[in-house]
Amino acid sequence: MMDAYAQTGVDISEGNRAVSLMKSAVISTHDARVLAGIGAFGGMFDGSALKLMDHPVLVASTDGVGTKTKVAATMGRWDSIGQDLVNHCVNDILVQGARPLFFMDYLAASKLDAEKVAIVVTGIAKACRENSTVLLGGETAEMPGVYVDGQLDLAGTIVGVVDRAQAIDGSQVEVGDVIIGLPSSGLHTNGYSLARHVLGSLDWGTTRADLGETVGTTLLRIHRSYLQQIAGVMDAGIPINGMAHITGGGFIENVPRMLPSNLAAEFNLSAWPIPPIFELIQTLGNVSQHAMFRTFNMGLGLIIALSPKDAERALVAAGEGFIVGTISHRLGEAVKIV
Amino acid sequence: MMDAYAQTGVDISEGNRAVSLMKSAVISTHDARVLAGIGAFGGMFDGSALKLMDHPVLVASTDGVGTKTKVAATMGRWDSIGQDLVNHCVNDILVQGARPLFFMDYLAASKLDAEKVAIVVTGIAKACRENSTVLLGGETAEMPGVYVDGQLDLAGTIVGVVDRAQAIDGSQVEVGDVIIGLPSSGLHTNGYSLARHVLGSLDWGTTRADLGETVGTTLLRIHRSYLQQIAGVMDAGIPINGMAHITGGGFIENVPRMLPSNLAAEFNLSAWPIPPIFELIQTLGNVSQHAMFRTFNMGLGLIIALSPKDAERALVAAGEGFIVGTISHRLGEAVKIV
Repeated sequence: MMDAYAQTGVDISEGNRAVSLMKSAVISTHDARVLAGIGAFGGMFDGSALKLMDHPVLVASTDGVGTKTKVAATMGRWDSIGQDLVNHCVNDILVQGARPLFFMDYLAASKLDAEKVAIVVTGIAKACRENSTVLLGGETAEMPGVYVDGQLDLAGTIVGVVDRAQAIDGSQVEVGDVIIGLPSSGLHTNGYSLARHVLGSLDWGTTRADLGETVGTTLLRIHRSYLQQIAGVMDAGIPINGMAHITGGGFIENVPRMLPSNLAAEFNLSAWPIPPIFELIQTLGNVSQHAMFRTFNMGLGLIIALSPKDAERALVAAGEGFIVGTISHRLGEAVKIV
Repeated sequence: MMDAYAQTGVDISEGNRAVSLMKSAVISTHDARVLAGIGAFGGMFDGSALKLMDHPVLVASTDGVGTKTKVAATMGRWDSIGQDLVNHCVNDILVQGARPLFFMDYLAASKLDAEKVAIVVTGIAKACRENSTVLLGGETAEMPGVYVDGQLDLAGTIVGVVDRAQAIDGSQVEVGDVIIGLPSSGLHTNGYSLARHVLGSLDWGTTRADLGETVGTTLLRIHRSYLQQIAGVMDAGIPINGMAHITGGGFIENVPRMLPSNLAAEFNLSAWPIPPIFELIQTLGNVSQHAMFRTFNMGLGLIIALSPKDAERALVAAGEGFIVGTISHRLGEAVKIV
């Protein structure tokens, strides 16, 4: 008699060990809203607060961290990609005015390493706490032959809520609106295949003068959550007409997602500092400016459109940011960089 | 100037083509509850029905389909694993009494094939419609170097709701309760690494007398959703004391999840038909009975514990099922197969 999975490459015990290692991190995100925790088939989240809203709308987003996982594997640093994942998802629903309720993660590899899994999930839990989000559940899967050895993939789903009258969909954006940009920490979670391709021949472990740190450190900089900044603006009662999270597809593909089809966004390239990592990629890879703006956030992780009369107050309420452009009638492209 | 991703192995256009191919399938799951669709950063789901509940509890589960994806790759059949995924997730929240609201999917591969992605997502959409579930959003990621060429991974998150007084957590299970089992269609989504290991030397394409079909067909049989059956029981007002979805870890690990720690579940092995695929795996792999029950569902996809006086009515309301065991005081193991 064989002991079932012993020869198949799947180690159920290692999976159980990972669950036990991550348990306290997961529980650290729980509060009175969690009605059933680890062990139950589904996580249970108290929705009674939704009854107090006029018209609750659940807002959900699923995302991964792309091949930033490959950078983590190269650098052997697994503590930050969980934070990248959560913060990315928080921003995805934030741009519609929603605040997060709970998060669910999915982590898979050809072979589970309980310690590595626990480090990743501890990062997820840290970001959940920072965003007042419950880590309600998740799945860890061992998939021999599906993943390349040593790699892993990480995806997650966030569920938040907004009262319908406060939802933001870009329909309020109008000609003359000012565009505020909030600074990114670096690439966030997009453009890593191009970045790794261009930077592959460099030494990632030595501090560079242009970056002020190593390439590896720059590439692993954590995707920022803008919950605090945007909550600041919303809680100050400043009307936001549209928001865009600058993710896959960069400026060119994400900014139009907050615009009515007859409007364009015009950005003043000198209005904000572009972090040196983007100049390094552009120069070394001989990448066109258009391709850079179609791939990367170019230093702005989140874009806000609002009335010019509210711009200064919004900058104060957000605590940071730059006035980076304006909304105009669309004649040609929806996004212009001048 | 290079055209950005052209040399990196990531094809943004192929991803956009996949989105356009799957669009109509996704929209086929939408109804008036969807307030913003494809293109928005987050999917928006009308939660106003929750206001009508006494104490709404959101129930969420994330899962994958394990290495059933490898069987799909071997057989070149991608239409069913999306259904496996959704039905699995539906059952995961159903055992706590929750009915699904919406689903979010995640699909990743080393290289996206737009047609293959569209076939998988069309399967997801089909199962969503069958379970009255909105496919609210998802993510499709191209991850060169993370996934083995030709393979893909598929995960999803379901969000449902139950009024707190109707939630089922097993605390009501008591000595003397009868256990009803609902028949599975086969392996559902668990035990595939062991099954592939044991069955690897067989011809998967020829009809076998013992299975009545090919090994490949048996292995790809779709994970059943029990929403209709359980809704039948609940809508008939029959109290369910506990339920378990028999997934990873089989009988041995899942049945205890519905039991108070002082109780045990005793199953009568002759009370239900064990599908021939399990006998084939057990014999060919020389697998112990304990290992079989720790790995597979052994023909029962979902287990219900209820009062003996309600058992016959429940079988009628469910439309199928077998009385397969009883609940007793726990002396040794939590699960006994006799």
